[in-house]
Amino acid sequence: MQLGIIGMGKMGLPLALNGRDKGLNIVVFTDKADKRAQLKQEGITVHAGLESFVSALTPPRAVWLMIPAGPPVDAMIARLRPLMAPGDILIDGGNSRYQDSQRRSEELRRDGIHFLDVGTSGGTEGARNGACLMVGGDEAVYGRMEPVFRALSGGSGYGRMGASGAGHFVKMIHNGIEYGMMQAIAEGLEILRHGPMPFALDRVTQVWRKGSIVSGLLMDMTAAALAREPDLGSIKGVVAASGEANWTVEEAVRLGVSAPVIATSLFSRFKSQDQEKYAEKSLAAMRREFGGHAVIAKGED
Amino acid sequence: MQLGIIGMGKMGLPLALNGRDKGLNIVVFTDKADKRAQLKQEGITVHAGLESFVSALTPPRAVWLMIPAGPPVDAMIARLRPLMAPGDILIDGGNSRYQDSQRRSEELRRDGIHFLDVGTSGGTEGARNGACLMVGGDEAVYGRMEPVFRALSGGSGYGRMGASGAGHFVKMIHNGIEYGMMQAIAEGLEILRHGPMPFALDRVTQVWRKGSIVSGLLMDMTAAALAREPDLGSIKGVVAASGEANWTVEEAVRLGVSAPVIATSLFSRFKSQDQEKYAEKSLAAMRREFGGHAVIAKGED
Amino acid sequence: MQLGIIGMGKMGLPLALNGRDKGLNIVVFTDKADKRAQLKQEGITVHAGLESFVSALTPPRAVWLMIPAGPPVDAMIARLRPLMAPGDILIDGGNSRYQDSQRRSEELRRDGIHFLDVGTSGGTEGARNGACLMVGGDEAVYGRMEPVFRALSGGSGYGRMGASGAGHFVKMIHNGIEYGMMQAIAEGLEILRHGPMPFALDRVTQVWRKGSIVSGLLMDMTAAALAREPDLGSIKGVVAASGEANWTVEEAVRLGVSAPVIATSLFSRFKSQDQEKYAEKSLAAMRREFGGHAVIAKGED
Amino acid sequence: MQLGIIGMGKMGLPLALNGRDKGLNIVVFTDKADKRAQLKQEGITVHAGLESFVSALTPPRAVWLMIPAGPPVDAMIARLRPLMAPGDILIDGGNSRYQDSQRRSEELRRDGIHFLDVGTSGGTEGARNGACLMVGGDEAVYGRMEPVFRALSGGSGYGRMGASGAGHFVKMIHNGIEYGMMQAIAEGLEILRHGPMPFALDRVTQVWRKGSIVSGLLMDMTAAALAREPDLGSIKGVVAASGEANWTVEEAVRLGVSAPVIATSLFSRFKSQDQEKYAEKSLAAMRREFGGHAVIAKGED
Repeated sequence: MQLGIIGMGKMGLPLALNGRDKGLNIVVFTDKADKRAQLKQEGITVHAGLESFVSALTPPRAVWLMIPAGPPVDAMIARLRPLMAPGDILIDGGNSRYQDSQRRSEELRRDGIHFLDVGTSGGTEGARNGACLMVGGDEAVYGRMEPVFRALSGGSGYGRMGASGAGHFVKMIHNGIEYGMMQAIAEGLEILRHGPMPFALDRVTQVWRKGSIVSGLLMDMTAAALAREPDLGSIKGVVAASGEANWTVEEAVRLGVSAPVIATSLFSRFKSQDQEKYAEKSLAAMRREFGGHAVIAKGED
Repeated sequence: MQLGIIGMGKMGLPLALNGRDKGLNIVVFTDKADKRAQLKQEGITVHAGLESFVSALTPPRAVWLMIPAGPPVDAMIARLRPLMAPGDILIDGGNSRYQDSQRRSEELRRDGIHFLDVGTSGGTEGARNGACLMVGGDEAVYGRMEPVFRALSGGSGYGRMGASGAGHFVKMIHNGIEYGMMQAIAEGLEILRHGPMPFALDRVTQVWRKGSIVSGLLMDMTAAALAREPDLGSIKGVVAASGEANWTVEEAVRLGVSAPVIATSLFSRFKSQDQEKYAEKSLAAMRREFGGHAVIAKGED
Repeated sequence: MQLGIIGMGKMGLPLALNGRDKGLNIVVFTDKADKRAQLKQEGITVHAGLESFVSALTPPRAVWLMIPAGPPVDAMIARLRPLMAPGDILIDGGNSRYQDSQRRSEELRRDGIHFLDVGTSGGTEGARNGACLMVGGDEAVYGRMEPVFRALSGGSGYGRMGASGAGHFVKMIHNGIEYGMMQAIAEGLEILRHGPMPFALDRVTQVWRKGSIVSGLLMDMTAAALAREPDLGSIKGVVAASGEANWTVEEAVRLGVSAPVIATSLFSRFKSQDQEKYAEKSLAAMRREFGGHAVIAKGED
Repeated sequence: MQLGIIGMGKMGLPLALNGRDKGLNIVVFTDKADKRAQLKQEGITVHAGLESFVSALTPPRAVWLMIPAGPPVDAMIARLRPLMAPGDILIDGGNSRYQDSQRRSEELRRDGIHFLDVGTSGGTEGARNGACLMVGGDEAVYGRMEPVFRALSGGSGYGRMGASGAGHFVKMIHNGIEYGMMQAIAEGLEILRHGPMPFALDRVTQVWRKGSIVSGLLMDMTAAALAREPDLGSIKGVVAASGEANWTVEEAVRLGVSAPVIATSLFSRFKSQDQEKYAEKSLAAMRREFGGHAVIAKGED
């Protein structure tokens, strides 16, 4: 089965190789010359022009976008739309906001183009060998693409989560859960790090990887990271928040659902990025006012 | 290798069967006649008296306690101590507080009895087929018992975490992490449950089980529970807290380590058990005072 | 100085009486006959028709809206706009979202109508005797209305917070802080309620009201509520969330600012409204899977 | 009425001056020569020796300790005990743990010495002009000392909270609430600081001080601190945690009461003191493993 892929970044390139290995006929568009060279070496057909890329696909076409969420997706759809034909299928495998996917599905429907939103999990490793795929869109369209999902998941989970937007909604919640699970692990490690006796955290997490209640892919990752460097001495304690957990918290607020752990996990990342510490400064300043407590002046400790 | 086991509850019985299957020579003490009958049927040697049980073990003996934490452990140790001899090894595989294990290790050392504290994870399934074992105690004593740990873990993780108490300390933190991970999953499921479109949560979690970042033993359990009954309609929303996460939060406070997600997860369970809702009542009462907001009287909604 | 007021609800009526007492020339529009009768008895001019109300005001007019936020404000502005003239001032004293106030300010500017957004705090008591007023809008327009703000605040705080929207932004944050402060008090009371010795919470809060670090209007309200009924036995533990704290959390997420206490306070209210407890059920169900722990079936306890 | 005071620190000295101004006969013990000089200048009787101090008090004596909690209190009681007589009253006005106060009360009772535990709030300003006093101990003993409490509170609240320990228990909870309220204010200020328009936070808090729902002593302190320096540029964002909130969280855990806001406020202070950021480093390291996300190396930003 043929699949066009657009976007040769951290996720798109391993996905293309994965599809090739699973017997899919992968056709790629990328405007980056080095990626084209790499793909050719791998024996994957690649186009430098979008028109030639679309023309090379056999109708009804299936095109998988693996590009940054937000404006880039709308921009790419605007370019693709005139080139595609009724009955073609456009798949957004990135981390788009589910409302955007609902809107795009409606817009493309007017041209007879089908749209599937696919939340992709499993990291770069999953993209390469078998990704977990959460799909939203019409049942019949999902059915047509199921062989592709089966191939790319390579034994990992995949399934239709519901109508358009459902795939990205489930992926959004997945990432909210991921933030909470990661924060729980991180807090536990920090307590161990300051514990009343020394612990070899690489060994602890290695033991936890197998058979414990907290075992799973995240513990595998944690153990792998700690095996490289148990004291994490070379890493700065600044953690990015990529967007989906923000949306999860906004969604919880909008729906009136309680999500304190997911929200606190997100906020803990925000705080790690905060240089000024205005909240903490104001706490220190209040204490000085009522308690006569000394505050630490800058550059004093 | 021979292993005496005391405690034929939810964890002890499957552990005995597990050991038997892995080639250990299992000898059991239990005062429950029905358990003795069951063990005999399984071909496991069982004693109704503690003295005959200890006598039946070849010195230097190895006795594994799998009984409720707290006073029962001290009571059993008090009974065993006069029966055991220098060089014997006593293993506490339950969920004891690590400070208790440190104390017991010191007390038994005076009689020349070795002590190992073993945090056991993996649930009843793990106990039966392969448990994750976190061990604390002297390195040489650990070395003597390693074949037993290897057998009982059956491919799961096991290892020495440090000196006496380290096994139960690591298990305590493990459970704190577990609470946070479970709460993160539960919050995500509740958002999906109230989401803008219907989701089949059994299918969602089934997909997440394989290859996703949130995959792992907890997601397996979640998917299994939702496969039985997706709307969980027969279950009451009251969640027990068994102790280790309480200790984790106390330890974080004592060590001055930030653990908001683990603490909030614990508190969310406390709140689920709260019938009176005095905090919520006081919030409603405050609102009425300053806002003229109506409050809902009992039996009114 | 003359002030037209629209909206004779929980806040608007006491505000009209407050203005009358402070020497303002209050003119009211309300379509509710009982409110008109009440106002006439108080000697306040009142109109049943919007046109006659606007005509009765001396240009340049000042009209204060004290009506529910959201669509009602837009609907009222749509009715007022054709009746008002360039140079008139429209004031929104309700709990509108700050982005709405920014938009309305822009829209009205096209007709030459000035707009001020005023966050009003202090509850019904403050509206009656002296409200805290946070104002957003052009400096010159604020200057023209300052005598009105001074009168209505009656010794309470008032001031210009910034350009259009700033008044409602500051009020939004104020309410977020209020949620956090209330939750902190409520948690403290619940611990006392379950403490190791009995406490008379009406007496405790009465003592805290005067001179303690936690004294303030909220503690006054808490003590007043507990004086009525210390065990709050007649009140249901269900707490409404009126919107501004939701926006505060959304704003924190949007701005990348950490606000775990405000968010947790909001979520605690959401949870108090939750009948199904799906998150808690899923936790109980997970525990059953891995621990063989019994769960409480509905109607069983 | 006569009152002996021991401890001339940040709270004890203003308390002595406060008592003197309210007509109490204040007698002080301090081994610090500079404090003795200062007190003499204020016309307050002061002793350099503990024996002469106790001898100078008319039986039945009343001695108020205003010294650091913990071992110093036990050490001072050990020195005082042989000097005091049955019927004397010892008052601990510091921030002792309530269990310590319960124990000390029992110990002193054996010598016929009465004990009152007094939680003191209001900061140094309150100590000087009128402190909020939460008292635990026997009703009759409280009755004998009530004139002293009335004098020292100077219009602030005071009252008997219950049996021995109740005063310090209520003070402990008071401080837990204080932490939550402070954190709520700090979070609100940080959102304003990063808001979509500039805010003069000194003006905002000044307006909030009067008549708003969030008005109170803490807002007064916040406004005072921001009046000095609105951007708090000279202060480091490191906040101490003095102990009572730690105990509040431990108590909540022990009693099974949910207190997420108080706990999160405490943890936010712990995190402000954390230099290593091991939790954040481990989050960054996990992200790198599964996402191929770059992490910031130390010294790199």
